[in-house]
Amino acid sequence: MTLIHRLSTADSDFQAKLNTLLAFESSQDKAIEEAVTDILQAVKTKGDQAVLSYSQQFDHVTAQSMAELEIPLSDCQKALDNLPVTQRQALEKAAERVRLYHEHQKTPSWHYTEEDGTVLGQKITPMDRVGLYVPGGKAAYPSSVLMNAIPAKVAGVSEVVMVTPTPNGQRNPLVLAAAAVAGVDRVMAIGGAQAVAALAYGTETIAQVDKIVGPGNAFVAAAKRRVFGLVGIDMIAGPSEILIIADGHTPADWIAMDLFSQAEHDELAQAILLCPDLAYLDAVEASIARQLSAMPRHEIIATSLKNRGALIHVRDLEQACEIANFIAPEHLEISTQNAAELSEKIRHAGAIFMGAYSSEALGDYCAGPNHVLPTSRTARFSSPLGVYDFQKRSSLIQVSHQGAQTLGKIASELAYGEGLQAHARSAEYRLDSMEK
Amino acid sequence: MTLIHRLSTADSDFQAKLNTLLAFESSQDKAIEEAVTDILQAVKTKGDQAVLSYSQQFDHVTAQSMAELEIPLSDCQKALDNLPVTQRQALEKAAERVRLYHEHQKTPSWHYTEEDGTVLGQKITPMDRVGLYVPGGKAAYPSSVLMNAIPAKVAGVSEVVMVTPTPNGQRNPLVLAAAAVAGVDRVMAIGGAQAVAALAYGTETIAQVDKIVGPGNAFVAAAKRRVFGLVGIDMIAGPSEILIIADGHTPADWIAMDLFSQAEHDELAQAILLCPDLAYLDAVEASIARQLSAMPRHEIIATSLKNRGALIHVRDLEQACEIANFIAPEHLEISTQNAAELSEKIRHAGAIFMGAYSSEALGDYCAGPNHVLPTSRTARFSSPLGVYDFQKRSSLIQVSHQGAQTLGKIASELAYGEGLQAHARSAEYRLDSMEK
Repeated sequence: MTLIHRLSTADSDFQAKLNTLLAFESSQDKAIEEAVTDILQAVKTKGDQAVLSYSQQFDHVTAQSMAELEIPLSDCQKALDNLPVTQRQALEKAAERVRLYHEHQKTPSWHYTEEDGTVLGQKITPMDRVGLYVPGGKAAYPSSVLMNAIPAKVAGVSEVVMVTPTPNGQRNPLVLAAAAVAGVDRVMAIGGAQAVAALAYGTETIAQVDKIVGPGNAFVAAAKRRVFGLVGIDMIAGPSEILIIADGHTPADWIAMDLFSQAEHDELAQAILLCPDLAYLDAVEASIARQLSAMPRHEIIATSLKNRGALIHVRDLEQACEIANFIAPEHLEISTQNAAELSEKIRHAGAIFMGAYSSEALGDYCAGPNHVLPTSRTARFSSPLGVYDFQKRSSLIQVSHQGAQTLGKIASELAYGEGLQAHARSAEYRLDSMEK
Repeated sequence: MTLIHRLSTADSDFQAKLNTLLAFESSQDKAIEEAVTDILQAVKTKGDQAVLSYSQQFDHVTAQSMAELEIPLSDCQKALDNLPVTQRQALEKAAERVRLYHEHQKTPSWHYTEEDGTVLGQKITPMDRVGLYVPGGKAAYPSSVLMNAIPAKVAGVSEVVMVTPTPNGQRNPLVLAAAAVAGVDRVMAIGGAQAVAALAYGTETIAQVDKIVGPGNAFVAAAKRRVFGLVGIDMIAGPSEILIIADGHTPADWIAMDLFSQAEHDELAQAILLCPDLAYLDAVEASIARQLSAMPRHEIIATSLKNRGALIHVRDLEQACEIANFIAPEHLEISTQNAAELSEKIRHAGAIFMGAYSSEALGDYCAGPNHVLPTSRTARFSSPLGVYDFQKRSSLIQVSHQGAQTLGKIASELAYGEGLQAHARSAEYRLDSMEK
């Protein structure tokens, strides 16, 4: 039985095989689309009543009013206080490091003054209100609360509203504790498309937000797609991926475990290793075989590695970098001795981990950078979630009397060329020669 | 006959009336959606052959190969050389100012080193290849070529590919001239959903791009929505808008013409004036009545003002700013004596024009800031097109041996909490206590 694909860039059909391995089409289920359309419409027109009714239906909550579905911040603080001390400290330390890193992403407004007194610039302001979706049940990760809420707060967002379903009324204390640590401003025990709709349209008790972020199931993703434009949304994430470039100096067990740490997320997760040393690839494969059965999530890992994983023999590390740029992986580990140098050849990757000690798991929780990263080759054009995702810019234009004389002539010339005479006349009104 | 709505914030139903005025739902036509789905699929599977065939069908071009649909850069340079000298100079001066402004948007990569030697940072890189859609026919604006292509080139994008349909083989010389000025790298005479598909999937002669920007008709917009995720796209723009806050010191004719300059774009464009001085609102209305018939596009202007325009009497300028923040307009003119001061109260607007000499038309062409701006209240969460739209970030994480000892313990604690044992083990492998 094959544990994991073995490929070589020397194979004549390597690129075709790689394309097959990478292929992933996010399915858009028609039944889900239709259900979501109905839910959005109901919440848009009926507000709280619809949200409450869907929550009773889907989450089996007993609440009879939206007020009962609000989780007081004091409950979040209590959840934090009740954590075992090492867990609480780990959460707080992680939050502190994430906050510190994201502080570096703040960019100031700027402007400059031209010789004629005209001032041009760009003003950077935070969004007013942001919605954070946190899944209920098994996929509820406190680290995800930190990674989504902290950049928003660092950006200066006044109100971060967290929504998270509580199936059968069951709350996840770790998620609530993380909300307290991250400084979330309001928590509602609602989920699904109805929660997305409430945030996007606003209801009697929930104010419309400017942007919705955070992971969710197919219903949540479909709802986010639908409300995009009315509010901002973050990327709809595909399956998680790791690509490792190794030179053979990192213990094979470490690399095998790094591949596992990606594969354990779900069966569709993708873990790929590139190495020019065939013996090392064999050693990693042997380590996979040896370590797999001891992993509690070994079934998920085995399926992921078998279907979507690969150990790829490359000509050299240069070629490995070329392949990495093609794949544009979510996570790239450069587990080599000259990692920093090699990283300069990388143009496309969500996060670049350099050196044997930089395992992806450290980045997932507490190194500081965000763990919400572009998947499925989208690192070619998109970025990790950051402070910049919770701010927006306004152009500043203050044309002086003198400046209007120069700019007015250029603008009217071009406006006439485009057949927009009112544009031209508006510019010409500001010319001294026309005023009189 | 009403020329333009008159509202007052003192009306008890003011907010409801304002909401009605602002309401705009971008229709998604089912027939268009289906046609676009077919076109995308055909180009995805048949490549150039499909693009050529659709171009023959829709644009009535006589070309028999894709090579014939490529417009050589030398033709663009010739188009520029053949422009009247004042027009050429205006185009070049506008481009120079746009370039200068956008240079200020470049942000550097950064990193910091922690005490234990761990290095964290963010690397900023340009996209490799960007597609620029430019409509054919009447809505073909050379200024739009500058505004879309220049930020991409400033960002460092290696290849900007412009696509523009040439109905019946007719080329727009101003658009080609603008492409030469902006430094576009390749021009293809193709358009519609088939051009978007070619850029998104790649064909034998057109390489896949990382992002597609630029305005287009309903087919182009639907195609862009569909390929989003495979490539990046810019915002799908709604109708253009201007909101003017006036204190009554700017000549009424100027303000009327500024409203016209928005309204002339199309019947759905929106032009609104806020002023605390009732007599001034009357003067602007009289000026509208007086100036309208002389405008070549008076029919479009009249329809736009009648259906979607408004002169709104406000209590004071403070209240005007509150309304502006609610509307989050694409263009905001603050035509008052204390414009800079008032602008500090503005949180949401695509572009803020300050003072009587800063007419929007100057910003549309040559002030420097981008004229591609968020519409339909999306300035609450999005920004003018800029250099940042053609760059992306990669997190940098280089954990030192010592750093892994601290971070590993935090990460494994949190990973066990989330039930992700491989994550925990991967972190623990880097601990000295576990290595031995």
